[in-house]
Amino acid sequence: MKLSELADRIGAQVVGDGAIEVTSCAPLESARPGQVSFLANAKYSKQLESTAASAVIVGTNVLAERVALLKTKDPYYGFSQAIVALHGYRKHPFSGVHPRATVEATATVGERTIIYPGCYVGSRARIGADCILYPNVVIYDDCVIGDRCIIHAGAAIGADGYGFAFHDGLHHKIPQIGNVVIEDDVEIGPNCTISRAAMQSTIIGKGTKIDQSVVIGHNVKIGPHCLLVAQVGIAGSTTIGHHVTLAGQVGVAGHLTIGDKVSVGAQAGVMNDLESNGIYLGSPAMPFAKARRVYSVFTELPELAKRVRELEQKLEQFSADDPGGIV
Amino acid sequence: MKLSELADRIGAQVVGDGAIEVTSCAPLESARPGQVSFLANAKYSKQLESTAASAVIVGTNVLAERVALLKTKDPYYGFSQAIVALHGYRKHPFSGVHPRATVEATATVGERTIIYPGCYVGSRARIGADCILYPNVVIYDDCVIGDRCIIHAGAAIGADGYGFAFHDGLHHKIPQIGNVVIEDDVEIGPNCTISRAAMQSTIIGKGTKIDQSVVIGHNVKIGPHCLLVAQVGIAGSTTIGHHVTLAGQVGVAGHLTIGDKVSVGAQAGVMNDLESNGIYLGSPAMPFAKARRVYSVFTELPELAKRVRELEQKLEQFSADDPGGIV
Amino acid sequence: MKLSELADRIGAQVVGDGAIEVTSCAPLESARPGQVSFLANAKYSKQLESTAASAVIVGTNVLAERVALLKTKDPYYGFSQAIVALHGYRKHPFSGVHPRATVEATATVGERTIIYPGCYVGSRARIGADCILYPNVVIYDDCVIGDRCIIHAGAAIGADGYGFAFHDGLHHKIPQIGNVVIEDDVEIGPNCTISRAAMQSTIIGKGTKIDQSVVIGHNVKIGPHCLLVAQVGIAGSTTIGHHVTLAGQVGVAGHLTIGDKVSVGAQAGVMNDLESNGIYLGSPAMPFAKARRVYSVFTELPELAKRVRELEQKLEQFSADDPGGIV
Repeated sequence: MKLSELADRIGAQVVGDGAIEVTSCAPLESARPGQVSFLANAKYSKQLESTAASAVIVGTNVLAERVALLKTKDPYYGFSQAIVALHGYRKHPFSGVHPRATVEATATVGERTIIYPGCYVGSRARIGADCILYPNVVIYDDCVIGDRCIIHAGAAIGADGYGFAFHDGLHHKIPQIGNVVIEDDVEIGPNCTISRAAMQSTIIGKGTKIDQSVVIGHNVKIGPHCLLVAQVGIAGSTTIGHHVTLAGQVGVAGHLTIGDKVSVGAQAGVMNDLESNGIYLGSPAMPFAKARRVYSVFTELPELAKRVRELEQKLEQFSADDPGGIV
Repeated sequence: MKLSELADRIGAQVVGDGAIEVTSCAPLESARPGQVSFLANAKYSKQLESTAASAVIVGTNVLAERVALLKTKDPYYGFSQAIVALHGYRKHPFSGVHPRATVEATATVGERTIIYPGCYVGSRARIGADCILYPNVVIYDDCVIGDRCIIHAGAAIGADGYGFAFHDGLHHKIPQIGNVVIEDDVEIGPNCTISRAAMQSTIIGKGTKIDQSVVIGHNVKIGPHCLLVAQVGIAGSTTIGHHVTLAGQVGVAGHLTIGDKVSVGAQAGVMNDLESNGIYLGSPAMPFAKARRVYSVFTELPELAKRVRELEQKLEQFSADDPGGIV
Repeated sequence: MKLSELADRIGAQVVGDGAIEVTSCAPLESARPGQVSFLANAKYSKQLESTAASAVIVGTNVLAERVALLKTKDPYYGFSQAIVALHGYRKHPFSGVHPRATVEATATVGERTIIYPGCYVGSRARIGADCILYPNVVIYDDCVIGDRCIIHAGAAIGADGYGFAFHDGLHHKIPQIGNVVIEDDVEIGPNCTISRAAMQSTIIGKGTKIDQSVVIGHNVKIGPHCLLVAQVGIAGSTTIGHHVTLAGQVGVAGHLTIGDKVSVGAQAGVMNDLESNGIYLGSPAMPFAKARRVYSVFTELPELAKRVRELEQKLEQFSADDPGGIV
């Protein structure tokens, strides 16, 4: 592809020779001639002096002489479009439902949806159009998957929620008569598990992207355009707003409400409702500014303990020096 | 089903018209006429004024005029029985071992056990009667599953324990010659992994219920009627009593002994033996009352540090004011 | 096998009757006649008085009269060799690629490699010789697995890395055009997930052993001979040296560098680069000695808070006693 053609495709402006051929994408430090790279941060523009890339996608304020530039407001997004343009998404070795996938007779599968070997789609489940189910994905009965969803290997959608009634020393299984509803444009990483609702639906909102080995309890409702990073766990009946980010290994207790545009840092433990637009860290999760202060004291606790000891000694010394004294 | 018939089935007493027809179950706030709901806590009995449910299962001390009641000592358990009576458990689209499941010739499978497509049952493994293995469950060779067990999609039972002998800079694999024994009435969530013992058996006791993505190391012994919530991890050779609850993301170190009826709060890190009947929280896990106090100071650490700073300033001021002084 | 023959096989010296027959291995406390056991720690040599084992593998400085000994410098490694000699590794019920495994036409599989039912090997993937892929393992397209690798049930290697470009309120999927390279002699536990690189390769070094449900992000590079214990999560683009041990549930943030021979304790949260040879604990992870001190104050925080309160009271009392005073 000519560089000028790529520039058109990604809505960037060429600075340099638009007639050169570009064939693929690579990081700045390993790019070879014919490759396109990108500079996420103008701060590192020195790397432009040494890269062997033929062209670099940069922000609008970056200059360079020895390499062609594609200027765009959002170079990271521009680069992602360049990868799409030059490499495209995965080509599948077959189309439709692979003969080694099992789709129950009462389930429906949308047009152009790809279902890999080893997948199982249960009774009355509905899979939308243009989805990809990678090998060994399991969709339990009655679950609903929207259009353009991608579900990676080994994910299990709609297994029974963890619902038991304790009676006479035994845990009695409560039939989980709800389902899971995955809205459009959701991606779910490998080996994730999303439990079906006890009654009604567990819901994953449109455009939400879920990383590997994430666990979602029954009756959870996740809004649109969230990011749930690897190993996140969300307990039953919690509701999460839109554009929420939960970083890796975050745990969220059950029956909570998390607002919109909330970010929670890695390994945090959310035990209370969280207000919209906040950033939270720590276990238990606290607002960002507070958590920063708490952990800064925490990691210096031995120093604090020493200072308390010194205060005690000073006061004791004072007492000793002032035997008839007032302390 | 007539309400009076449902009352008989769940051992409840009808207050109101026992002749009305009920067809299904729903939560109080979304129930429609013909549906049965329940009130877990008499505190919320105001909801009985507004529900559209035809009948509500309640404790023995609840009153209401506009809706029929089913009174029972344990309304949550009563409701779970009502779901069983009106909805029942999942109906499977086939019986026995699905032709797309692979059961090695030397393995045995009990009567009425359902094995879904993609399951693998290894050599000499024994699966009891009335079990359900959902799609893509793997039972390694020589493992034993009791009667009435439910194992959800993607769980792997009996993979090799994590046993290596380090010698000359290399980790040498130790054959894991034990197995896993799952007793009767155990439920195991999707994508759980339970390692086979190095020697002898990893054991999951009768009636224990395991949530999603739980990980159990080799030679662990878990007593009967425990609850292991999602993403719990238990390291090798730990022994756990009966009726123990480990909440989500709890980690338990290896070679520990946890007593009976212990509860451990979410994300806790258990690094020592725990006595029976205790409740433990935190990382490291501490007895409930202590953990409450520790975390209440922890989340106010900046305030504590400020008070120490003020004490230091006061004493310093005192020194300054008393130049020939005693401090 | 004669005890003397076993001694030869494991390079140990017989003390006692080398002519006795030994048939299998067992722990000291449950061993029966004909069985071989081992004593890891000379401190527990009293157990040699009561064991029913016919022979015990011990260190060079242990003495006993009533049971034959096999003396060796490293009794744990010696015992692991004895298990190999007397029990061997798992015998598989078939050879080569099982007809119920799916290997795409352009993938290659090395000699003597065993691929169990339900496995999927994607286009252009290359699997080395003498590997074992247990049931339902998924190797995505273009991934490379070395020789003598063992991958347990349900592991997913090479699913798309978690890469999205946020633009106009939506998360746009970035094609993940890299792959995963697993070097020789790696073992990967059940239900692990290892993401393919955005560009280039996610790498697992030679001889590294990975436990159950471990999650590795895209572009991570793990050196040779590491141990990653269950439920560890490593975020994208982090580089880890050789002989590193990460204990259970450890989380490592992205874009970090962890040196060689580092050990990190269970549940730790690594948020900064770690220097070689260190031991780190806690969340956030701190050097061992510091973490010990921090957690020792942490678990006694209520006591520290009480001492601060007492200091305040003393100073206040002092003020009160000295109304015209200097404090």
